[in-house]
Amino acid sequence: MYQFQCDYNEGAHPRIMEKLLQTNLEQTVGYGEDHYCEEAREAIRKAVGRPDADVHFLVGGTQTNATVISSILRPYQGVLCASTGHINVHETGAIEHGGHKVLAVEARNGLLGSEQIRTAMQLHLAEDGPEHTVQPGMVYISFSSELGTVYSLRQLREIRAACREYGLPLFIDGARMGYGLASEGCDVTLQDIAELADVFYLGGTKQGALFGEAVVILNETLKKDFRYYIKQNGGMLAKGRLLGIQFLTLFEDGLYFEVSQHAVNQAMRIRDAFKAKGFEMLVQSPSNQQFPILDNVTLRRLSEKFLFSVWQKVDDEHTAVRFCTSWATRPEAVDALLAEL
Amino acid sequence: MYQFQCDYNEGAHPRIMEKLLQTNLEQTVGYGEDHYCEEAREAIRKAVGRPDADVHFLVGGTQTNATVISSILRPYQGVLCASTGHINVHETGAIEHGGHKVLAVEARNGLLGSEQIRTAMQLHLAEDGPEHTVQPGMVYISFSSELGTVYSLRQLREIRAACREYGLPLFIDGARMGYGLASEGCDVTLQDIAELADVFYLGGTKQGALFGEAVVILNETLKKDFRYYIKQNGGMLAKGRLLGIQFLTLFEDGLYFEVSQHAVNQAMRIRDAFKAKGFEMLVQSPSNQQFPILDNVTLRRLSEKFLFSVWQKVDDEHTAVRFCTSWATRPEAVDALLAEL
Amino acid sequence: MYQFQCDYNEGAHPRIMEKLLQTNLEQTVGYGEDHYCEEAREAIRKAVGRPDADVHFLVGGTQTNATVISSILRPYQGVLCASTGHINVHETGAIEHGGHKVLAVEARNGLLGSEQIRTAMQLHLAEDGPEHTVQPGMVYISFSSELGTVYSLRQLREIRAACREYGLPLFIDGARMGYGLASEGCDVTLQDIAELADVFYLGGTKQGALFGEAVVILNETLKKDFRYYIKQNGGMLAKGRLLGIQFLTLFEDGLYFEVSQHAVNQAMRIRDAFKAKGFEMLVQSPSNQQFPILDNVTLRRLSEKFLFSVWQKVDDEHTAVRFCTSWATRPEAVDALLAEL
Amino acid sequence: MYQFQCDYNEGAHPRIMEKLLQTNLEQTVGYGEDHYCEEAREAIRKAVGRPDADVHFLVGGTQTNATVISSILRPYQGVLCASTGHINVHETGAIEHGGHKVLAVEARNGLLGSEQIRTAMQLHLAEDGPEHTVQPGMVYISFSSELGTVYSLRQLREIRAACREYGLPLFIDGARMGYGLASEGCDVTLQDIAELADVFYLGGTKQGALFGEAVVILNETLKKDFRYYIKQNGGMLAKGRLLGIQFLTLFEDGLYFEVSQHAVNQAMRIRDAFKAKGFEMLVQSPSNQQFPILDNVTLRRLSEKFLFSVWQKVDDEHTAVRFCTSWATRPEAVDALLAEL
Repeated sequence: MYQFQCDYNEGAHPRIMEKLLQTNLEQTVGYGEDHYCEEAREAIRKAVGRPDADVHFLVGGTQTNATVISSILRPYQGVLCASTGHINVHETGAIEHGGHKVLAVEARNGLLGSEQIRTAMQLHLAEDGPEHTVQPGMVYISFSSELGTVYSLRQLREIRAACREYGLPLFIDGARMGYGLASEGCDVTLQDIAELADVFYLGGTKQGALFGEAVVILNETLKKDFRYYIKQNGGMLAKGRLLGIQFLTLFEDGLYFEVSQHAVNQAMRIRDAFKAKGFEMLVQSPSNQQFPILDNVTLRRLSEKFLFSVWQKVDDEHTAVRFCTSWATRPEAVDALLAEL
Repeated sequence: MYQFQCDYNEGAHPRIMEKLLQTNLEQTVGYGEDHYCEEAREAIRKAVGRPDADVHFLVGGTQTNATVISSILRPYQGVLCASTGHINVHETGAIEHGGHKVLAVEARNGLLGSEQIRTAMQLHLAEDGPEHTVQPGMVYISFSSELGTVYSLRQLREIRAACREYGLPLFIDGARMGYGLASEGCDVTLQDIAELADVFYLGGTKQGALFGEAVVILNETLKKDFRYYIKQNGGMLAKGRLLGIQFLTLFEDGLYFEVSQHAVNQAMRIRDAFKAKGFEMLVQSPSNQQFPILDNVTLRRLSEKFLFSVWQKVDDEHTAVRFCTSWATRPEAVDALLAEL
Repeated sequence: MYQFQCDYNEGAHPRIMEKLLQTNLEQTVGYGEDHYCEEAREAIRKAVGRPDADVHFLVGGTQTNATVISSILRPYQGVLCASTGHINVHETGAIEHGGHKVLAVEARNGLLGSEQIRTAMQLHLAEDGPEHTVQPGMVYISFSSELGTVYSLRQLREIRAACREYGLPLFIDGARMGYGLASEGCDVTLQDIAELADVFYLGGTKQGALFGEAVVILNETLKKDFRYYIKQNGGMLAKGRLLGIQFLTLFEDGLYFEVSQHAVNQAMRIRDAFKAKGFEMLVQSPSNQQFPILDNVTLRRLSEKFLFSVWQKVDDEHTAVRFCTSWATRPEAVDALLAEL
Repeated sequence: MYQFQCDYNEGAHPRIMEKLLQTNLEQTVGYGEDHYCEEAREAIRKAVGRPDADVHFLVGGTQTNATVISSILRPYQGVLCASTGHINVHETGAIEHGGHKVLAVEARNGLLGSEQIRTAMQLHLAEDGPEHTVQPGMVYISFSSELGTVYSLRQLREIRAACREYGLPLFIDGARMGYGLASEGCDVTLQDIAELADVFYLGGTKQGALFGEAVVILNETLKKDFRYYIKQNGGMLAKGRLLGIQFLTLFEDGLYFEVSQHAVNQAMRIRDAFKAKGFEMLVQSPSNQQFPILDNVTLRRLSEKFLFSVWQKVDDEHTAVRFCTSWATRPEAVDALLAEL
């Protein structure tokens, strides 16, 4: 049974496993202060084009979001995001557990618009007694989004401008950064991300690593004491070199981009096949997540040979489902799916 | 200039002031363990018809909401409420500061429906991995609501049934409980409230006291160690007898209901006058808050002689405003408003 | 039965009650934005000699401590204080509920020394990986202390110097500020406090008001958005003018200092009487709290006519107890105690 | 340069690496619901002798402590522990960040005594107004302790009895559980731990795994909804099977105990050598952490060839240091140290 239900079905890219094995009995200091982490930081600084960036490695996405947001907001501030944002719906209230309201805004296709940021700020400031309401203190967006959609460079620049206007740091959740950058028609580069975000992260878990997320802090004022936040939020891995080794392997010679492109290519094959067969898509996604709307018969038939996620009921006869590809998706698995279609 | 902008413009009902003065130099123990508090508790138990109720006195509404909710939820649980709920919009994220997500549901006219509770629970339980999302752990409603509207007995019973079905404690914010119970056409009694809620509070601040809210806990399992919660949340008044004296005065012979009726009567005069003059109301409110929609000319004209709240813009030419009455509203003030209309 | 068990046994100073009565039916805006609050702020700025100070009114001490500390610390920081500090022992973990560790230091007689601050900082900085430990982020002291003791001007200046050296804001809990300033031999003035603290508060609850604490912020960087913190922590009184009226009465012509002196005078009479009778004191206190060590026979005998607090067992035969005086202590009550001794 | 500074200098035991490699491209579901996790749970249930135990896998120790404690305490409760406890000193206030006070008790040699638990509870209950103080809500101990010391079975039973007496759940931090059980003279078995604790964890990070801690919940009332806590605290690894595979390898045929014994054997060689040369030990440790007190000359000399931790200054001439062994310590490294001594 081929599995397409998520992008973390397998272990790690073979080159990562190989490197972990080679270095396994080497002795290093802990907590990310070893030379592999330092080299990985350097490789990432180079890849994002910002020698001044601070780079930190954490284990997982929810933890990373909670840690970064905790480091930015004051207690009475909240984080603006699309209602579909991962922090709003799939992190068991980790942000609220840390004391902050998620200020969710209805968003089309998982993308937040700059106008929505402006409106939220204007509404807050127009309050008769704004101190009775939560102050928006930062903006969170996902690239690519939870629905596979991707911001254009123009959209990102507009968001950045709105953030600047109101003094809001911009945080980009890059759990699927590589898949976003490799998406069809994408005009955004990693350097653009580093230029526009105050802080973002490069997801490893879904992009070829066993686990791990690399936080890149660009804004000078957000760098102070970040390691305290990591430790307090349980994200400081004792054997930090495991993260260093993985990200070094992903970034020293472009493996990150290579595996991302592979996943998107396979996703496009899936999308094209569904469309060719006349299926509608829940959303037009140019990246590694595809959301075809299946009639009940097809749903049942495909379920017998493939694993995929049930996303949402559309009507009594139709259901939107999710097919994910990843660095590990074998073309033969896609072949099989296409054959079945 | 007559003030109608809120229901806490004045001090306290003269009988309360008198009692505070009489007892001022008496010596009592602190923190709500004096005999006035005990008598007030007894009077409230009698008024609500539940000799087994635990009654606690706190200072203000935001504090009371944060304290009660903190005492009910586990860390991964959130509180279901109408999107207009006070805890969602006007408490600067106090609930999130305490670690919990407010699970806001779009609600008509400030009232939450039992179907919305069921839907929220069903959606949560249908999640593929509900532990990735916040678990609804209780229901919060306001009586009367933030828009002046009032649940019928049937609606409350349906809410209660939905809560029971899913094991959700029901908390009723009664900052304006008296005004709700005295509202036009209300078929709910205080005894009904005590029968249907797991915990509720009787607002004093807006209903004749200088300040103070009386929490009434009916559900046995929610009574344990409640005083710890009050203290931790900064609500344990050193001179607790001030609260006891005020609530005793309000409840020993029905003053609470008397002042509430007065406020609603004056509000009905205002409502009828606006309607008679052809103004539309933002919402049909039978209680002490009225929301006429004014054209810009009328808005400007009334602003010269009266204070009221601007609620929301309806269109370029019209604005919904709020007129509040209270225990202290002088009929002459309403006369003046009616004359001006 | 005369009560000496605390300094909040009675209501408020008669002049405060009178003023509350006079203004009772006046209409004002809420939340501390009325003219009484403004006048009270002005009177306090004058009394502390700092026209640039921000002044805010809250309801109670635990709430005030939680609010101020929340406004100063980052999540990974803690507050240094004496182990006897109120925030460490008598606030049901309100500071930890807000997310911060209380870094308690063993202190002699309730007073923190500048050397203890330096030692704590040096230990933190000397850690191999300070980010694994809580960073001291501010210093909290009480004036007068929970044991009635009072810092000298030299001690305060040394504390201030240590704070400056390590960039730690200094917060002075002044729940009993007046009693401290009026204490026997005190060489500190309110202006000194305002010069040395980054933020402090003037206690009303124990010093003649029904309730209320006035926070005075001197440090410019701590002023921003403080009203959001008050609201979020449940300390923003709807009828804020009640606080304004009380503090205006206390500060417009020196009543605060007058009642403080009265309390200390009565406490000195009590102290002298115990000492003259050969009783030892747990601690040498020059202010309104006295801690004689009573043998069991005396303890029993005095308990029949007076209420006082049992503080701590000294040995099987002796117990330290606390006698408090206040603005309201009648000289005849002290006469009776002296006669009994 | 041989490294003895901690027990997480290397990667994982070769058998673990081998198994990770073998399974790397296999597809499984995420979040710990795969068959490897299920098998590992079963192996652990068998090893601890409790078929009814709930077993959950988390990534690191700080996260595990925060998660377990969050699942047990109510907001106004704190956790009793030795002042040297990891949660008190080396987790950047993660417990306080979650809202709870760590009630640290001065402890000899890192071990908490049952009498200290009783005293703490008695003091709390004897308070005049216990609700003004944090209520002890659970007990935390470490096995082995942060100083390498180990409770005897009698001591553990006494602690358990004291916990039962006051209704306090007992949580045992087993970051070094294997090393404790393998320690010289230990009369405690893993089955004893499972009988006495309400919840404990088996550390993987320091005991042969790349990372990972296995929480074992024995007390029925603590099992409910634990996965929500894991997710909220950022501990739910997407590729959960990595944890399952590691713990399965450690527990399916006793590898966990084998590597633990190896580490303790090497530590005993180090201890004996230091003692034979007349060095005093800071504490008598029978497990994998040894704390010799070195004179400055020896300190300098050893530093040239070995990495170890500086623990604390004893006097101007002497410093206590820490040598750690682990599953990975090569006997030749110890030989070299012994030769140097």
